[in-house]
Amino acid sequence: MASSSSFLLLAVLLALVSWQATASDPIRVNGFVCKNPMEVNADNFFKAAALDKPRVTNKVGSNVTLINVMQIAGLNTLGISIARIDYAPLGQNPPHTHPRATEILTVLEGTLYVGFVTSNQPAPNRNKFLSKVLNKGDVFVFPAGLIHFQFNPNPHKPAVAIAALSSQNPGAITIANAVFGSDPQISDDVLAKAFQVEKNTIDWLQAQFWENNHN
Amino acid sequence: MASSSSFLLLAVLLALVSWQATASDPIRVNGFVCKNPMEVNADNFFKAAALDKPRVTNKVGSNVTLINVMQIAGLNTLGISIARIDYAPLGQNPPHTHPRATEILTVLEGTLYVGFVTSNQPAPNRNKFLSKVLNKGDVFVFPAGLIHFQFNPNPHKPAVAIAALSSQNPGAITIANAVFGSDPQISDDVLAKAFQVEKNTIDWLQAQFWENNHN
Amino acid sequence: MASSSSFLLLAVLLALVSWQATASDPIRVNGFVCKNPMEVNADNFFKAAALDKPRVTNKVGSNVTLINVMQIAGLNTLGISIARIDYAPLGQNPPHTHPRATEILTVLEGTLYVGFVTSNQPAPNRNKFLSKVLNKGDVFVFPAGLIHFQFNPNPHKPAVAIAALSSQNPGAITIANAVFGSDPQISDDVLAKAFQVEKNTIDWLQAQFWENNHN
Amino acid sequence: MASSSSFLLLAVLLALVSWQATASDPIRVNGFVCKNPMEVNADNFFKAAALDKPRVTNKVGSNVTLINVMQIAGLNTLGISIARIDYAPLGQNPPHTHPRATEILTVLEGTLYVGFVTSNQPAPNRNKFLSKVLNKGDVFVFPAGLIHFQFNPNPHKPAVAIAALSSQNPGAITIANAVFGSDPQISDDVLAKAFQVEKNTIDWLQAQFWENNHN
Amino acid sequence: MASSSSFLLLAVLLALVSWQATASDPIRVNGFVCKNPMEVNADNFFKAAALDKPRVTNKVGSNVTLINVMQIAGLNTLGISIARIDYAPLGQNPPHTHPRATEILTVLEGTLYVGFVTSNQPAPNRNKFLSKVLNKGDVFVFPAGLIHFQFNPNPHKPAVAIAALSSQNPGAITIANAVFGSDPQISDDVLAKAFQVEKNTIDWLQAQFWENNHN
Amino acid sequence: MASSSSFLLLAVLLALVSWQATASDPIRVNGFVCKNPMEVNADNFFKAAALDKPRVTNKVGSNVTLINVMQIAGLNTLGISIARIDYAPLGQNPPHTHPRATEILTVLEGTLYVGFVTSNQPAPNRNKFLSKVLNKGDVFVFPAGLIHFQFNPNPHKPAVAIAALSSQNPGAITIANAVFGSDPQISDDVLAKAFQVEKNTIDWLQAQFWENNHN
Repeated sequence: MASSSSFLLLAVLLALVSWQATASDPIRVNGFVCKNPMEVNADNFFKAAALDKPRVTNKVGSNVTLINVMQIAGLNTLGISIARIDYAPLGQNPPHTHPRATEILTVLEGTLYVGFVTSNQPAPNRNKFLSKVLNKGDVFVFPAGLIHFQFNPNPHKPAVAIAALSSQNPGAITIANAVFGSDPQISDDVLAKAFQVEKNTIDWLQAQFWENNHN
Repeated sequence: MASSSSFLLLAVLLALVSWQATASDPIRVNGFVCKNPMEVNADNFFKAAALDKPRVTNKVGSNVTLINVMQIAGLNTLGISIARIDYAPLGQNPPHTHPRATEILTVLEGTLYVGFVTSNQPAPNRNKFLSKVLNKGDVFVFPAGLIHFQFNPNPHKPAVAIAALSSQNPGAITIANAVFGSDPQISDDVLAKAFQVEKNTIDWLQAQFWENNHN
Repeated sequence: MASSSSFLLLAVLLALVSWQATASDPIRVNGFVCKNPMEVNADNFFKAAALDKPRVTNKVGSNVTLINVMQIAGLNTLGISIARIDYAPLGQNPPHTHPRATEILTVLEGTLYVGFVTSNQPAPNRNKFLSKVLNKGDVFVFPAGLIHFQFNPNPHKPAVAIAALSSQNPGAITIANAVFGSDPQISDDVLAKAFQVEKNTIDWLQAQFWENNHN
Repeated sequence: MASSSSFLLLAVLLALVSWQATASDPIRVNGFVCKNPMEVNADNFFKAAALDKPRVTNKVGSNVTLINVMQIAGLNTLGISIARIDYAPLGQNPPHTHPRATEILTVLEGTLYVGFVTSNQPAPNRNKFLSKVLNKGDVFVFPAGLIHFQFNPNPHKPAVAIAALSSQNPGAITIANAVFGSDPQISDDVLAKAFQVEKNTIDWLQAQFWENNHN
Repeated sequence: MASSSSFLLLAVLLALVSWQATASDPIRVNGFVCKNPMEVNADNFFKAAALDKPRVTNKVGSNVTLINVMQIAGLNTLGISIARIDYAPLGQNPPHTHPRATEILTVLEGTLYVGFVTSNQPAPNRNKFLSKVLNKGDVFVFPAGLIHFQFNPNPHKPAVAIAALSSQNPGAITIANAVFGSDPQISDDVLAKAFQVEKNTIDWLQAQFWENNHN
Repeated sequence: MASSSSFLLLAVLLALVSWQATASDPIRVNGFVCKNPMEVNADNFFKAAALDKPRVTNKVGSNVTLINVMQIAGLNTLGISIARIDYAPLGQNPPHTHPRATEILTVLEGTLYVGFVTSNQPAPNRNKFLSKVLNKGDVFVFPAGLIHFQFNPNPHKPAVAIAALSSQNPGAITIANAVFGSDPQISDDVLAKAFQVEKNTIDWLQAQFWENNHN
């Protein structure tokens, strides 16, 4: 617990006076512990060796290392976070949304096929899919709340990207996992009709092992 | 075009003076035409017979009639919209998200089985599914950006709900449609791996007719 | 009220880790108790039988049943609430404002004469009154902070409406009650001059019984 | 009014490049004309002799000189405005609300009796009236959307205050004027019941001359 | 500690019920103690004799008396604060920024030479300096985050201004103090290169006594 | 620059209908041209080869390549941008602020000595300087509006960082340039007193060539 008591909330950097900090219960904002501004230090805004090394990729061939308010408490209220994403050859960061953030991404190594789907359009239009092949140094934007993915089309080489998100706590919803791998499961009656398949297809899907790609 | 020129933006109700309104190009905010506040009238905040009648349900057995800033331009900047949802017997409003809004819903007629899935949790936890059976007068909340659905479990009777959303332009993303019915299609390589199925299952899914439930 | 301690704040659904939740003092956001996200359940987003039944109307002939963050703690930070309003024959929801919300309303039964008054305009203009008679299924918008009312003009039949507000805690200020029924009373010198009446008219007004229509 | 076309929007101070500014239609944000940042000058953030002189007070004995985005276009999007308020002996700034702003006030000369009324409380509580007598240099806060007033209790000396508001376009709703002096009038049936008086009292009130105190 | 426990947070004025206020640990929002709304009183929105008297000016000839959420806890979440600034003859409020607020200022006495510098422009443009001489009653705006100052050019007479800021906790960063007077000092290698001067010039600057003008 | 006229504003992705898009004047939000959502394409969210190559550093030894709403118009309203920063050996990104954004930074190559200065503290405290040496993969946060810098302490090797900012238009104010290199210059009387130096020191500073590091 020692380190938790050293967290600071920047929003109150100027506001907290000592009589407030002497209360026996720690002061919290958004559920996070704050700190007397005169006691804050650089470690409250720092995470060592966070994004330098490739991580082992998961079963769909990716790994997301997100540095958000859980890793750097000084981010509280500041509306930003950063991530490194590793992609195995032919690996993907599967279709997902961030319920509270837009994402901007740049490729550090390799090639990525990326895309997002717009929200529903008036009939007879369908949800529009916008995609692009990105090379090193290219930048792409995934607007808040829209379903998007990245895929490494190269069968031999890994890829690496840096992504930034417009929230200190963006959240992530991997579509396949949330729909077919939730605990408890969503009724297969509902899903069979929604996805226009037989119930046993849904049952098969729900029986897979759903590993969360990132949170 | 006559009606469009009569739209008002409430945010500037007090601010616009005549020399500004006399410009030959209409004033717009968020892309919508504004109106001199002295010329605004009650029709700019009104939609007749919007939500009283059952509508024909779609192939999954529901119909969403959303009254947003497209129907009532006076809603611009005001952060709210309202909808009536009709459900056929065994009909559903299939799993979807609103990228820019929380939804609160109450049942007017019939019974609904509703639920939402939380965002990804740290392993070994899975996305949590929270559900409830709602009867007439019950109220339920679907937090912003989370995947949710409503299903009418009654094989004989329709159901009706009123829902409100915390945006004048909430958007909707029907998951199955956005993932399998986009234009153009998402690569079946990507989707097969994401959903842990064979590519021909994806191809079959993509070959279905995907009708947008609502926008 | 034991269940109140199990309320959850959705904004931290992804953020709270166990060492934070084990603190002996409950975590609060906006003054409300939060909950470990793995312990949240559907009841935190649900209110049973909230809006199905007519309620006894007050002395001006209406009853507002508001479901806000006090009734459903999961609404915290989510910016929306919902209400059922019952109107006796010739009853009204008297002129009031919501200091923190826009309202959108639809009629479920009966007829309503509704209106709002714009804020002050440059002289010689006066505050503009915009009104409309609403029938079943009509939708009307009351912009944030403006004085508005609903009146059931039918001497024989009740009316019912569903309203949604763009805040989880919109507040309500019934004009007559706040001006003439406050505790303690506002000086009758001030009010007599403001309303251009004799002081004994003010005194008579202040002597009435002011029942709060809703909060 | 040539100078109106030279107004700048600060929010885009860094963003507009010349190819955007060369469009024949002026660029607007919130309905106000913007300006190429390289052409902006100090006059766009300045109003001369705005608040130095006493102004003639109105029939309730006050005058509000508000400097908002209409007077200084550079205020657009910046969320603040300032006002000088003059009070005749026994004059008042009558009960009013600002639908989009909190107000903070300090007395420059004389004495003021000020107060605000909280929003509706759960029964049996009534709207609470909080008041204070202010002398030179005292500071008081009127929270957003709440009904408040200032009254000069001195029968011989005027008073002066400076007030600031948390919006570049706060709006003002003088309660008596909006309720009894709107154009057109609110139905006296509605108002008689809301204010618990006879209709002829309402008619008498509506027949007064309602001069807008400020906008 | 008695007075601290009587602070109120307005945002929850309508929301807190007694079972919440009876918890043994005080409820806080933004790190400030809240109060049961039925126990709030006018003192929570009031500061006596805050801005009436000239204060002793500091070594650069000014004094800022800021009334923010630290002085009036009822300001919490309301987004505004107010200040009196005294200027000795030839005194200045030196170049500084407010990281979280726009400032609007009016002159009460004397004359002020004021200005702000825009943010960086595309080359070959330089940061633009906008300035103005203000007399009594003039109003000027300093946009959020931009470097600005006020200077009293009169060698014989003091000056006084009232300023309002668009945050209950605007913060202030006096440029010279933050750059040359921080604790610990910034490396003189870094500053010498940034300011294009010899290191001994930086060392001399850092050796001065840096008194904080205001916070 | 023809493609610039085809930029889209995502915020209205769902809202614009064709009759609005057919107006002869383009629709703008925040001063930027919007686009019919059915005509939007991936290029509106993409910038090729934006951040892959080292750029020539400026006279203080750095180069900031910022991808904001000027480079990718689809970023409008989405609240994020990204930058690559190159540092020559012993080069620095000199002390500066972002008036509208927090920055989060990770090192791609080399070593950086970074720091920021807190805002003014109550006497006798001084502005606190928090600093850290960052190696490859470390992450550091510079809170919104605070003065910060990065310096490459290695005399032989360059360094590279990726930074993200919590605004699509964060702005930058290089302190030395804004204070000493503005156009026109700030009065040396004012600056001499503020910085506690002789006027000829200020004159010498103002005579330097001030090249904008980034905008």
